[in-house]
Amino acid sequence: MSYFFKVKTLDEVMALQQQFVPKDQESIAVESAFSRILAQDVTAPCNMPGFRRATMDGYAVQASATFGASESTPSWLEMQGSILMGRVPDFTLAPGKAANIATGGMLPRGSDAVVMVEHTQTIDDASVEIYKSVAPFQNVIDEDEDFKTGDVVLSAGTFIRPQEMGLASGLGFSTLSVHQVPKVGIISTGDEIIPIHEDPGPGRIRDINSYTLSGFVQEAHALPVRYGIVKDDPGALKACCEKALAETDMVLISGGSSVGTRDYTVEVLSRLPDTDILVHGMSVSPGKPTILARSGTKPVWGLPGQVVSAMVVMKMVVVPFLHRIQGYTVSKPLVRIPAKLTRNVASAQGRRDFIRVMLVHGPDGLLARPVLGKSGLIRTMVYADGLLDIGENLEGVEKDTWTQVILL
Amino acid sequence: MSYFFKVKTLDEVMALQQQFVPKDQESIAVESAFSRILAQDVTAPCNMPGFRRATMDGYAVQASATFGASESTPSWLEMQGSILMGRVPDFTLAPGKAANIATGGMLPRGSDAVVMVEHTQTIDDASVEIYKSVAPFQNVIDEDEDFKTGDVVLSAGTFIRPQEMGLASGLGFSTLSVHQVPKVGIISTGDEIIPIHEDPGPGRIRDINSYTLSGFVQEAHALPVRYGIVKDDPGALKACCEKALAETDMVLISGGSSVGTRDYTVEVLSRLPDTDILVHGMSVSPGKPTILARSGTKPVWGLPGQVVSAMVVMKMVVVPFLHRIQGYTVSKPLVRIPAKLTRNVASAQGRRDFIRVMLVHGPDGLLARPVLGKSGLIRTMVYADGLLDIGENLEGVEKDTWTQVILL
Repeated sequence: MSYFFKVKTLDEVMALQQQFVPKDQESIAVESAFSRILAQDVTAPCNMPGFRRATMDGYAVQASATFGASESTPSWLEMQGSILMGRVPDFTLAPGKAANIATGGMLPRGSDAVVMVEHTQTIDDASVEIYKSVAPFQNVIDEDEDFKTGDVVLSAGTFIRPQEMGLASGLGFSTLSVHQVPKVGIISTGDEIIPIHEDPGPGRIRDINSYTLSGFVQEAHALPVRYGIVKDDPGALKACCEKALAETDMVLISGGSSVGTRDYTVEVLSRLPDTDILVHGMSVSPGKPTILARSGTKPVWGLPGQVVSAMVVMKMVVVPFLHRIQGYTVSKPLVRIPAKLTRNVASAQGRRDFIRVMLVHGPDGLLARPVLGKSGLIRTMVYADGLLDIGENLEGVEKDTWTQVILL
Repeated sequence: MSYFFKVKTLDEVMALQQQFVPKDQESIAVESAFSRILAQDVTAPCNMPGFRRATMDGYAVQASATFGASESTPSWLEMQGSILMGRVPDFTLAPGKAANIATGGMLPRGSDAVVMVEHTQTIDDASVEIYKSVAPFQNVIDEDEDFKTGDVVLSAGTFIRPQEMGLASGLGFSTLSVHQVPKVGIISTGDEIIPIHEDPGPGRIRDINSYTLSGFVQEAHALPVRYGIVKDDPGALKACCEKALAETDMVLISGGSSVGTRDYTVEVLSRLPDTDILVHGMSVSPGKPTILARSGTKPVWGLPGQVVSAMVVMKMVVVPFLHRIQGYTVSKPLVRIPAKLTRNVASAQGRRDFIRVMLVHGPDGLLARPVLGKSGLIRTMVYADGLLDIGENLEGVEKDTWTQVILL
């Protein structure tokens, strides 16, 4: 055989992301860009907001005309007009004068600040008293204060949140260049695995992994494509894997649990053209029997058949590779929440352990309560709110230690 | 007029969620159920896994036959057969005998544990030596150890994650009863607001709020429906609002910034049939000029026109109401991350302040660095990773205080 057992640490596996390249770009309407990844920098084609704009209702003034104004010694200003919303003022403000303006209105030339209406009193139609001085540019956003023409306002590799959609809209981008959404092929294997609508009877179980893995792919804003269940037959697995590789951008093969399935996967992968086995075993628990290959430009994973292990590997290891293919410049960091551990947890040195925990409110913050039950029980993942990450150099974590929990 | 100014605290506004009811239920394929909310409890129709199952490769035994076994005094067991994956064993294990089994295999009657292959040595085809004793049910999942027939395995109101999809699949549910996805109508108002593909020229700005609010609706797994821009005209706003109310489950009207727009919204809402103004002003910054009405069974919001305020109110206040309509039994809690504040931040007592912060790595955890710039600048939201929540009873937070940041 042309491969060796290549057991790697989690960090070593993570570093292999660099071997894969992001999907090509496409143009998409800004209203559909939520959760997509920018493929190009966005440069401001104009100043924003584009004119000197009031941020309060009140009076446009020259700030210097209000200096020294107070409740006891107000400034008295003559009214020069009113500013209509959405219009360019048709006058220049003369020194010592004021103009009525609403939030969002354009300041007339000659004015550089707005006095809030609360700090004024109208004397008559022609004049207003100012009870509080304003500094230049107070209650005003200047024409290029948000962004200047030519500023790089968003960088390639950025995840598009609501605010990025708004910024692009404000600058007049109806479309954005984003990376295409990757498709992820999902194959379940194992003689004991049956479709979920069938009655397994004793000795067999329904296909859980196809659905949990689909869920994680959707959670990561990519597109799952299920290829069903393949029995423990290298020829059938090779054919299915080739089809999935031709049609998708990344392939996940979750092993059945039978002896030899794992070897089938490696054997099949090593027989594909232009394919390297990069990882064969990972010092992570659960998740040790994980395989990663590069087939052409695409990653192919052999995931544990055990349902909990498959989910942990998906969350901790596979999704960062998916982020890479989606075009994140750096992988999106996992959200980690501090919580105090409620009991001692053992761990093996030299192995990265992920412990399922429930998060409950305690007197001084969140408590991380390890979920009891054997590691193969799916309910341990259903009851879990997160994973406690125990590093390779620890033999465990003591009760009452503040730990970092990765949300599930 | 039939309404009063009804300024409420954030907690008072949140409590009004109870006035609204979740959407009706529908049946959906389990593979499409990610991010949906269960409308009915899910009860196990069968035991899971449904048979006594090996979790390790090795030998099925009666645990008592291994008691006292060690490296120096191994137990010697006679082989009784091999178990085929996915099949019911056709024999009962006799006392003192062993059967070859792989992970996932069904234990034969008479056996209650599995000895890992690593703790055995094959003597010949007919016998095996055991070097380590096992306890009853060790390396085994019993037939009802994950779930028992009749157990409520998932509760109505649960957000469906990948593991819930897997559990339902494992129990044979091809479909699930979930709440329908709410549609959210979005209306921008203001004489100064123009469509994003037009050139605003000085004095006008492009419609940002329609896109940021759409993004938050999508982030919350609901469906935005944009109704475009309505000028400051009560008749036009009423017509647009009625159309949106007829077609969607919740309506968001973001005010233009002109004087009186806010009053137009309240005036229009109070003229709709069967409509109560529940909130008119909120002691939250940014976000004070927020309106909430109940029109029939549906919430209608008047949001600030200022883009940053509209986003903060959407994130902190509107989305929990959307969760309620989606059928969450309790609103999904916001993720809060501890971070140390890098500078003093002032706040007004009696007002709930949300400060935009960047999160950066520091020597002893995350640092929350307030984003500088006037509150009306959209870049303050683009640069922000989260919101620092300063309670109503605080006058501010001092530098180096550990604070809780809500992720954006």
